[in-house]
This record gives sequence, C-alpha cells and structure tokens, in this order.
Amino acid sequence: MGLIVQKYGGSSVADAEGMKRVANRIVAAKRDGNQVVVVVSAMGDTTDELIDLAKQITPIPSGRELDMLLTAGERISMALLAMAITNLGHEARSFTGSQAGVITTSAHGRARIIDVTPGRIQEALAEGAIAIVAGFQGISQDTKDVTTLGRGGSDTTAVALAAALEADVCEIYTDVDGIFSADPRVVPTARKLKTVTYEEMLELAASGAKVLHLRCVEYARRYDLPIHVRSSFTTNEGTWVVKDHPQGGEMEQAIISGIAHDKSEAKITIVGVPDRTGVAARIFQAIADADINIDMIVQNVSAAATGLTDISFTLPKDEGADATAILQKLQGEVGFASIQYDDQIGKLSLIGAGMRSHPGITATFFGAMSEAGINIEMISTSEIRISIICRQADLERGAKAAHAAFGLDADSNEAVVYGGTGR
Amino acid sequence: MGLIVQKYGGSSVADAEGMKRVANRIVAAKRDGNQVVVVVSAMGDTTDELIDLAKQITPIPSGRELDMLLTAGERISMALLAMAITNLGHEARSFTGSQAGVITTSAHGRARIIDVTPGRIQEALAEGAIAIVAGFQGISQDTKDVTTLGRGGSDTTAVALAAALEADVCEIYTDVDGIFSADPRVVPTARKLKTVTYEEMLELAASGAKVLHLRCVEYARRYDLPIHVRSSFTTNEGTWVVKDHPQGGEMEQAIISGIAHDKSEAKITIVGVPDRTGVAARIFQAIADADINIDMIVQNVSAAATGLTDISFTLPKDEGADATAILQKLQGEVGFASIQYDDQIGKLSLIGAGMRSHPGITATFFGAMSEAGINIEMISTSEIRISIICRQADLERGAKAAHAAFGLDADSNEAVVYGGTGR
Repeated sequence: MGLIVQKYGGSSVADAEGMKRVANRIVAAKRDGNQVVVVVSAMGDTTDELIDLAKQITPIPSGRELDMLLTAGERISMALLAMAITNLGHEARSFTGSQAGVITTSAHGRARIIDVTPGRIQEALAEGAIAIVAGFQGISQDTKDVTTLGRGGSDTTAVALAAALEADVCEIYTDVDGIFSADPRVVPTARKLKTVTYEEMLELAASGAKVLHLRCVEYARRYDLPIHVRSSFTTNEGTWVVKDHPQGGEMEQAIISGIAHDKSEAKITIVGVPDRTGVAARIFQAIADADINIDMIVQNVSAAATGLTDISFTLPKDEGADATAILQKLQGEVGFASIQYDDQIGKLSLIGAGMRSHPGITATFFGAMSEAGINIEMISTSEIRISIICRQADLERGAKAAHAAFGLDADSNEAVVYGGTGR
Repeated sequence: MGLIVQKYGGSSVADAEGMKRVANRIVAAKRDGNQVVVVVSAMGDTTDELIDLAKQITPIPSGRELDMLLTAGERISMALLAMAITNLGHEARSFTGSQAGVITTSAHGRARIIDVTPGRIQEALAEGAIAIVAGFQGISQDTKDVTTLGRGGSDTTAVALAAALEADVCEIYTDVDGIFSADPRVVPTARKLKTVTYEEMLELAASGAKVLHLRCVEYARRYDLPIHVRSSFTTNEGTWVVKDHPQGGEMEQAIISGIAHDKSEAKITIVGVPDRTGVAARIFQAIADADINIDMIVQNVSAAATGLTDISFTLPKDEGADATAILQKLQGEVGFASIQYDDQIGKLSLIGAGMRSHPGITATFFGAMSEAGINIEMISTSEIRISIICRQADLERGAKAAHAAFGLDADSNEAVVYGGTGR
C-alpha cells in the first residue's frame, strides 16, 4: 500500500480511446492497493488549437487571459478522465490547479510553484477516491488569478504534488519506454537506462534531452522524490530518476550514462572587441537584461598587436534575432568590428556521474571525434558533463561515434521511438 | 454614466469574427461613459461538442465532472473576448463564475443561484476595466465544486449579476430583434413588442416562447431589474421587459401582448378511473415523485351509471415514456381501464396584462378558433393568460387566426428570424 502520483501527457489522452486505456491503468494501480493521484495534460493538440484561436483574436494576448484560455484544456481532459474512471466502477474526482492547492507566482505563462496545499486531494484520497488534477496550472498567491507553469509544467505539477503528499513515487507516463543512453532515432544502438541520477537528468535536460523538464527534476531532487519515467502503452519498467545509482549491482556503474544532442542553438561571434575591463560585462549585461539565455561562452586570447579579441557565445535560435538587435545597438558604444550569426551549429554532450572519479574521459571523447573527422569549435564542462559545439551536419555522426567509444551500445535491440512528454 | 450588464449568447461569439464584432459593441458602451460587465456563453456549438466527448467516454457522466467539463466552454469564450477587447485598447478581465462570486446550490447541471458576491467584479470596474464573466456557471456553497445552472443559465447569470451590482439595465443580446407578438416564422405579421411586463414574459416563457428563460425573468422581477432584449447584429432598440407597461403613451395598451405556441407537449388520458376520494391524488403524487412536470389537467364529470371518470393531462413529450411506465405500475392498485398517449397535440396561449380589466377575451379567442375550424380539447387560464390544447396540425393556423382577431398584425413588415438565445 503506497501513494502514487501518476502523470499522463497529452498524447496518452488524445482521444476517448486513450482516456479509457489510461483509466484502466489508473484503476489497476488502485486495485493493487495504492492511493492514486493523477496529473493530466490537455488532450492531444488542444493547447495548440487554443493558442491558434487566441492568435485569430490578437497578436499579443494578455498573459492573464492566455492562461485563463489555456487552462480550459486540462479542465476538459481531467473531467473526461474522471468520467472514464467512474465508468470502471471507481470513484474519481477532478481538481483544477487552484482546487489542488497549487500556489504560484503571478508570472503568467511561466509561473513558479511557491507552495502546494493539497487539502482537498488528501480528503478525496481519505474517502477512497482517485484524485485527478489538472497539470500545468495553478493560482497566483498575490492576485488569485489562474496561472500556467510554462513548458514541462504538467511534469512539475506531478512532482510538486508528489512531494507535498509525500508520495512513494511519481510516475511520468510518456510515449517512450524511458530515458535512453542517446536518442534512438539518431543512435539506433541506444539502450534504455535503468537508473539516472537527478544530477545526470538535470544535465541531460539542459543538454537537449526532452523527456523530462529541468524544473521538474530540480523539484524532485530538492525533495529526494523518485521519478519513474515509463510508457503508457506497455507495462515495462521504465527508467528511475533517483539520488544515486544503486550500489553493488551485478556490474560496475557505467562512467557515461547518456549522450544528448541539441540542434536548437545558434552561435553569435562578436568580432574585434576592444580587450578592456568591463566591455564583456557591458555586452552580457545587455543580453541578460533582455531575458536571453546564454549557454556557452568563449573569448579568444587577445591579439597583442591590436588589443582586440573575439567573443563567441551560444543561445537558443529563437532568441537570436533579439540578441543580434541588442548587440547592434551596442556597437557604437563598445566599438567592436562586426557580428557573425551562425545557426548551423550542433551541441553534443556526454553526461555521467561516474565522470567524477574517472579521468581521461575528455581524451577518449576528443579522440573519437577526431577519428570521426569532426572539428570541435567550443567546449564547456561541468563536474559530470562535457559538451562540445560542432557543425550541425556532423552532430549525429558524432553522437554515434561517442556512443560506441564509451561502450554504450546495447546488446539487445530495444528499438523504440524517442520523443517528448508533452507539457 | 451608468452600469450596464450585457449578455451575449453562443451564436454571437461563434468565431473570431463574432468575438471582434461583440468586442466593438462592448467598447462602444464603455466609450458612452458606462461601466460595463459582460456575461458570455460558450462559443457556438462548444457545449454540444463537449457533451459528445463525454458520451464517448460514458453513457452516464457524473454531474460533478460534467459540470467541470462544460464550464471549460465559457472559460474559452470569456478569455478570447477579453483579449479582443484589450486589442481595442481597453482593459478587460475575465472571471469564472466562482471568481465572480456566483454562489449556488450543489445540484449539478441545474444549480440555483443562492447569492452573488461580486467583489472582484466591483474591483475591476473601479479600476476602469471591463469585466467579462462566464455565464451558466457558479460554485457550490457546500462543496466548493463547480456547478452549472442548466438551460437558460447564462441569462440568469446576467440578471443575477445585474441585480447584485444594482445595474441600470441588463441587456440580453440575441440573434433576433427582440420579443415578438408571435413567432414570426409562423405568423409573418408578428411585430416586435416595445415592452413586455415580467408577468407577461413569465407566462410567455412558460407557454413555449424561447427568447428568455423562466428563471431569469423571475430573478429580474424579484429585483425589479429592467431587461433589454435586443439583437447583437443591429443597433435597433429591442424589447424592454419591465414591471409595468409605460402609461400615457400615444395609444391605449393592447389587451393581448403576445401569442405563444408550443409543440413540445403530449397528452395522457387515463380512461375509466374509479371516481373515489384520493384516487386522483394517488395518481398525481406518483407522477410528482418522479419529478415529472405536469402542465394542464382535465377531469371529466363522472358518469353516474358507472362511477367512472377520465383524467387527461399534458406534460413534456420527453417525460411521456416515464409517466406512462409509472401509470402502468399503478393500474392494478387504482383499477383504471386503460392509458391513452397522444403526442399530436399543440398548445396555443394568449398572454396580456390587459386581460385583467377586459372581459370577453375568451369569447373573442374561442370565436376565432371556431371560425378557423379548430377544435379546442383542453383549456387552462391564469389571470393574464388563456391556453388551449388543439391538434398539432391546427396550431399554426390557430396562431395566425388569434393574432388577427386581436389586432396584433403589424402595419410594417419587420420580418426577422425568430429563435432562442442559446443558454
């Protein structure tokens, strides 16, 4: 007997058949003697359809009203899911984010959870009911307005609720079998991981793996809550996201857990920047003020003859135009020569908690890249991650080469389709 | 400068174009110096589509979850309408029934408004914003669950809010020009009424006129709140629903304000009922226990030789099967001979506050029916209404004949399409 929080994404409840399939799964967990809380996303493409409707009305919908609009999506799916469960003879009650006590900041479209006060959920559980909760939404502490949590929001709702309810596990259901050592669409020999640590998962998410969102993993780590990422289409064990890899297993822990690749970034190079104190700070402050997220930064050694240097950084392609505009405004003040914009880059990352205790990873990695004829343009590292920037055209070849070089290739063929978890 | 509550039905906001048209109207009222509160229904066929979705899941959705589902419809329309207004440069804020303080009973699908505490609406108005409120929905006082008000619910929301806010007028926008002396699809000479009293409107609604729902008119009468029923497609004056017809106008008040007809009822005749004390009571108690609404009742004079009588009553066709089943169960106990079911009847009603002071209405009415060759099967009257039951095939002919007999035919041709106001 335990308390399980399950989260189903939009693709799992895209239509009535999906609802019924998911309802059966939920009821099975209940029949196993568990208390069950379910977080559900909007059905299939509902959110996109609602955004389209808003765009027909106005190019710049107010955040408050857009949140009010979008939260209709989960309202529909949670009510239908509750009906499907009731139809199987089990009591189910649906709750909006507000009713479930998901208290957030008032930043519409990207609110952060401040607190979870799940009194009504606990009441429903105590009365033997299954609680269905709208993902992705909450209520602002200050304004009492409806808010949404932004991308990956439903995963975050599930983990936050699980933490508040002191659940035994948060099960994130998706359309893939778990978290893989690499994207199986790119690296066909990729294998499903049994466990991933929170830290590894954070690095994987930050490096472009789309299975779990950063904020949800951060939340789980803070409360030491196990996440089980698994498929809603099979009953196979998925991947457990936990604090540490289990010790004393039958084989030694792999040094590298996974390889992530990312084509969503672009590189901006500022050419001929005067190498004076404060110039780089001035540039990056202007970028930060515009809420643009910079990933990797490289500054060349200044040429002694000219006193000029080049600064390169990577950022999401979506923010490329804004960043370029900001830099152009700074040109007169800072006095650099030109700006180069390059959106044909790719980022390849190796992630593994075992990296800490194993030197020589970088040498193996760079050796594999060299053998594959791939030029490394930028490098960044953390304690458990190495990332490189290369040509986008070389990225998938690089992923395969690295996967083989670190012995990650699967013995069996667990070929599955890799994808996101909805929101 | 006044406070106006406007209500727009689903057909007025069926798509983005409709939203924009309605937004312009709302902004015009605001520019005229009024504080404006808008109650809006779900877009077009949204509610029916949501009900279809529920039916794909289960034949008997729970009331709580069905209400949760359906209220998504107004959530979508109110958020979009608020965006459309903001796009015109005016501040608008949308509010759910719960946020607007619409407190109801917990009878899902047919909740009644207990109280309206519109603090957040007043706050929005005080800050110069236009308030958009979801029609048809509220929050249960006891369970804090989301409720819906049933048919005509958005009209009731509008009137209840207008009363709580002490608004100057509640404008109900629809796709017809107002309330007519008869259904113009049946009586082409029908004319738009300038005023109708609450009592007349109640009788009209109870007699089959679909423009305003009974509960909304009851609410308006209780608070003496003027309702202005008008088209959202024109700026014409519509029909005012008020306490009394204005006095001292250029012409004498018409005796009959309107004629309503209704094809939705059926007649059940119980043949050979023993004429004993308590028998009729037993029959109608059983019908009432099943929540079946009876309209007209006629009991023949008992035949002295047999001590048997016949009892006929009318009821909504929808409830015919249930009522027949209940009566069949009673046959052994009560000992009547047989049941006859007739769904080919029509009801024709004359309504007019002037009836009180004018005798002879019945004679004129019955004379007109006789001249038109229409047989009257049942009669019922109130202080300001006469209704008859006739063959359904004769109903429209009867409506035209009565309309002419009471001098209601219009001079001008204000031909418009007659219809409902959505919910």
